[in-house]
Amino acid sequence: MGEGCFRFASSLAGTNEQTEVKSIMNILVINAGSSSLKYQLIDMTTEAVLAKGLCEKIGIGGNITHKTQDGYKDEHAVDFPTHAEAFEEVVRLLTTGDHAVIKDASAIGAIGHRVVQGGTKFSASALVSEDMIAAAEEFSDLAPLHNPACIAGIRACQKVFPKDIPQVAVFDTAFHQTMPEKAYIYPVPYEYYEKYSVRKYGFHGTSHRYVSARLAQLMGKPIEELKIVTCHLGNGSSIAAVDHGKSVDTTMGLTPLDGVIMGTRCGSIDPSVATYIAEKEGMTIAELNNMMNKKSGVLGVSGVSSDNRDVSAAAASGNHRAQLALDIQKYEIKKYVAAFAAAMGGVDAVLFTGGIGENDQNVRLGVCSDMEFMGIKIDPELNAKFSGQEHEISTPDSKVKVWIVPTNEELMIARDTLEIVSK
Amino acid sequence: MGEGCFRFASSLAGTNEQTEVKSIMNILVINAGSSSLKYQLIDMTTEAVLAKGLCEKIGIGGNITHKTQDGYKDEHAVDFPTHAEAFEEVVRLLTTGDHAVIKDASAIGAIGHRVVQGGTKFSASALVSEDMIAAAEEFSDLAPLHNPACIAGIRACQKVFPKDIPQVAVFDTAFHQTMPEKAYIYPVPYEYYEKYSVRKYGFHGTSHRYVSARLAQLMGKPIEELKIVTCHLGNGSSIAAVDHGKSVDTTMGLTPLDGVIMGTRCGSIDPSVATYIAEKEGMTIAELNNMMNKKSGVLGVSGVSSDNRDVSAAAASGNHRAQLALDIQKYEIKKYVAAFAAAMGGVDAVLFTGGIGENDQNVRLGVCSDMEFMGIKIDPELNAKFSGQEHEISTPDSKVKVWIVPTNEELMIARDTLEIVSK
Repeated sequence: MGEGCFRFASSLAGTNEQTEVKSIMNILVINAGSSSLKYQLIDMTTEAVLAKGLCEKIGIGGNITHKTQDGYKDEHAVDFPTHAEAFEEVVRLLTTGDHAVIKDASAIGAIGHRVVQGGTKFSASALVSEDMIAAAEEFSDLAPLHNPACIAGIRACQKVFPKDIPQVAVFDTAFHQTMPEKAYIYPVPYEYYEKYSVRKYGFHGTSHRYVSARLAQLMGKPIEELKIVTCHLGNGSSIAAVDHGKSVDTTMGLTPLDGVIMGTRCGSIDPSVATYIAEKEGMTIAELNNMMNKKSGVLGVSGVSSDNRDVSAAAASGNHRAQLALDIQKYEIKKYVAAFAAAMGGVDAVLFTGGIGENDQNVRLGVCSDMEFMGIKIDPELNAKFSGQEHEISTPDSKVKVWIVPTNEELMIARDTLEIVSK
Repeated sequence: MGEGCFRFASSLAGTNEQTEVKSIMNILVINAGSSSLKYQLIDMTTEAVLAKGLCEKIGIGGNITHKTQDGYKDEHAVDFPTHAEAFEEVVRLLTTGDHAVIKDASAIGAIGHRVVQGGTKFSASALVSEDMIAAAEEFSDLAPLHNPACIAGIRACQKVFPKDIPQVAVFDTAFHQTMPEKAYIYPVPYEYYEKYSVRKYGFHGTSHRYVSARLAQLMGKPIEELKIVTCHLGNGSSIAAVDHGKSVDTTMGLTPLDGVIMGTRCGSIDPSVATYIAEKEGMTIAELNNMMNKKSGVLGVSGVSSDNRDVSAAAASGNHRAQLALDIQKYEIKKYVAAFAAAMGGVDAVLFTGGIGENDQNVRLGVCSDMEFMGIKIDPELNAKFSGQEHEISTPDSKVKVWIVPTNEELMIARDTLEIVSK
C-alpha cells in the first residue's frame, strides 16, 4: 500500500447517533508484512481516514507512527514481540486520550486485510474463515515472503479484537483472475503449471481495479465500454490491460519480479541473463533471486538509488547511468502500453498511478511522446501542471485519453470489506 | 539458415569466358555447427545457387546430402572425423563427375561464413584474419555452442581450400549493433555489463537486414524513409524494429533464448519462473538451461511438437494445449509488433519471414487481426493466397503495409562476402 491520501471530514465526532453509525461503518484496513503493519481506520459514511499508521520492527524491537485526522502525530518505541502486541498498541492509540477517534474496539465494524497471493482460488475478496486461511496458506509457497505475514496479521486480529468483528481478505491477485489462458500460461513445460501452479498471477490488482473504475467515473462512461491501460508505477511497478472492466493481461507474473523495470527489480528478461550471471559469479538460487529483486532495476543500472527522484537529480547533474536507467524505464513502459493496447485491439485511455505514475511528469511525458501513431497525444503543460492530481493530461484532440488517477488501495479494501460484511 | 530457394539460371555453364568470370564470382557460403555444415555455392553474376547441401554427424560418423542446380541429388554416408573431411567431400562433389558445377576449388572466388556471435566488436561483416578469429574466440563464452563451431569451420576451410581464397565472416549480431543503450542494457546490476558483457546482442541479423532491404525495394522506397517491424519466425524466432534501415531493437538478447515463444524455447519470462522451477525440481543451471532451450516453447505448452504444422494439426483435431500454444504464439508476436512500432514512434510496414512467417497464414492472420487501431489491416484472402511467396497481404486502405518476404540469409552472406573481397 502506498501513501493513501488523508481525507479530513469535519463533522465526524460528537453525537451518539453518529457513533452508532460509525460502529458499523468504521473499517480498519490492514497491510501486514513479516515485521511491519500498516493500518488505516476509514469511516465509510464519508470515506474519510480517521487515523492511520505504521508499526515497524515487529519481532525485533518495535516502533509505531500514528496519525489522526486532526493532524496529531505520535511516534514512539514500544515492544512488539508479535503482530498481536502491535495491534494492541494500535487499539490503545485509536481509543485512548485526547486524540482517540473511536470509543473502543467494538466501534470497528470490520477489518479488511490485504493478502498478496490468492492463487487461482480467489477471484474476488472473501470473508475470513478457517477455509479461507487454509487456502491462502496453500499459496504461501508462491509468496513465501508475503502470505505468511498476511495470515499472521489475520490471526493476531482474531486474538486482539472482539470475536464478532468480521474480517475480510482482499487479494492483490484477484482482479487479474480474468486473464485468458494465452496471457497467463508461461511457455515452459506445461507440467510445471499442473504440478506447481507456475503461471502468471499479477499483483497490484486492488490498485488497478480502483483506478480503472475511478477513471470510468471521471470519463463519465460505463467501464464496460472502455479499454484502459493502467500504469501503476512505484517502487514496484505493474501495468495492466483492463478491457471492459476486466484485467486481460498484466506485467507482473508468477511473482512481482516480472514485467517492467522497477526500483530494485529487473522485470522480465532473457532467463539466460540470470543463469549466465549465476554461473559466472557462482551464485546460489537464493543469491540470484536476491540480486534480481534487490540490486537490479533503476538502482542496478544507475548505481545511484532505487528512487526516481534521486536518480532524476543525478541525471540532471550529468550522471550518464542515471539517465540511462530513466531512459530504460520510459522505454519499457512505452512498449508495454502499446503491447497492451494491441492485446485489447485498441485503447481508449492510458492512466498513470502510484508514486512515480502520479508524481513523475518526465516518466509520463517520455512514455506518451511519439505515440500519435496509436492516437495518444499528451499535453506537456497539463502533464506538468497536474502532477500528483487527478486530472486528464491529453490534448483535446487526442483519440486516446491520458489521465493521472491517484490510487487508493486502502479505500478499495475498505469498500470491499464493507460490501462483503453488509451482505 | 533456413531452406534457401534454389534459383536456376539456364546459361551458366559452358564457355571459357563464363568460367573465368565465375572464378571471381562464385561464393561458397558456409554455416558450420558443431556436428554439421550447411553450404551453398552461389554464382553472383546471377545470384543463382549452383549447388547446396548439408554435412551431418561430423565427429560421430558422417552423412552428406548434396543437390545441384540441374536437379541432381546425392545422399550418402561418409566418414567425417572433423569439419576438414566434410569440406574435402564437398569439394569433391562440386568438382567431380557429371554433376560437377565447377572445375576445381580455385573456381571459388571467396568463402563466406555465418558466425553467430560478433559481440560488440563487429557491427559489419569482416575479412577473416587471425585478429578476427581471436576476437570471435573472445565471444565464444557468450555463444559456447555456436562460435567454436563457426571458428572450426573457418579453420577447416583454411586447411582444405587454396590459401589465396579469401574468407569473410558475417555475424548474426552485427545488424543489431545500432541498437541504442536503452534497448540493449538489461536492468540488472551494471557491473555485469562491464565485467561479463551481459547485454542484448540480438541474432538473425543477416535475415532482418536482408528482408528489410528487400521490402524497401519492393515498396519502391529508400529504406532510410521506412519504419519496419520484421518478424523472423521459424524454429527460432526473433522480431526486430528496423528504423530507417537500422535495427533499434530486437527480441533476442544475450542469447537466442530471449524474446518471443519459439519451437522449444520459452523466450523472455519472469526470471523467478526459472528459479522457482529449478528449486522445485532440484535442477542444476545446465539442466535449467536445457529445459528452457529444448523443452519449452510451443513444444512445452502443447506437449505435441515444436513444429507449427504438427501443432496446428493437433489443434484442428481438438487438442486444447496445442491450440493454447498457437494462441500464445500469435498473442506474443502481436504484442511485440505493437511494442516495436512504439519503439520507432510508428510503423510503415510489418513483414513476415522464416519458415513460420512465410508459410503459416494463421500466425500472420492472428498477429495482424484487430490491429486497426494502429493502422494495420491484413487482407485475409491475399494472406491465404500468397503464403510462401513474396507478396503484399494488407488491404489497399491499410495505412501500415503487411508483407510476406521470404528470407535468404545465404544470399546476404554471399553479397557481403563479394562486397568485402571486391574492395
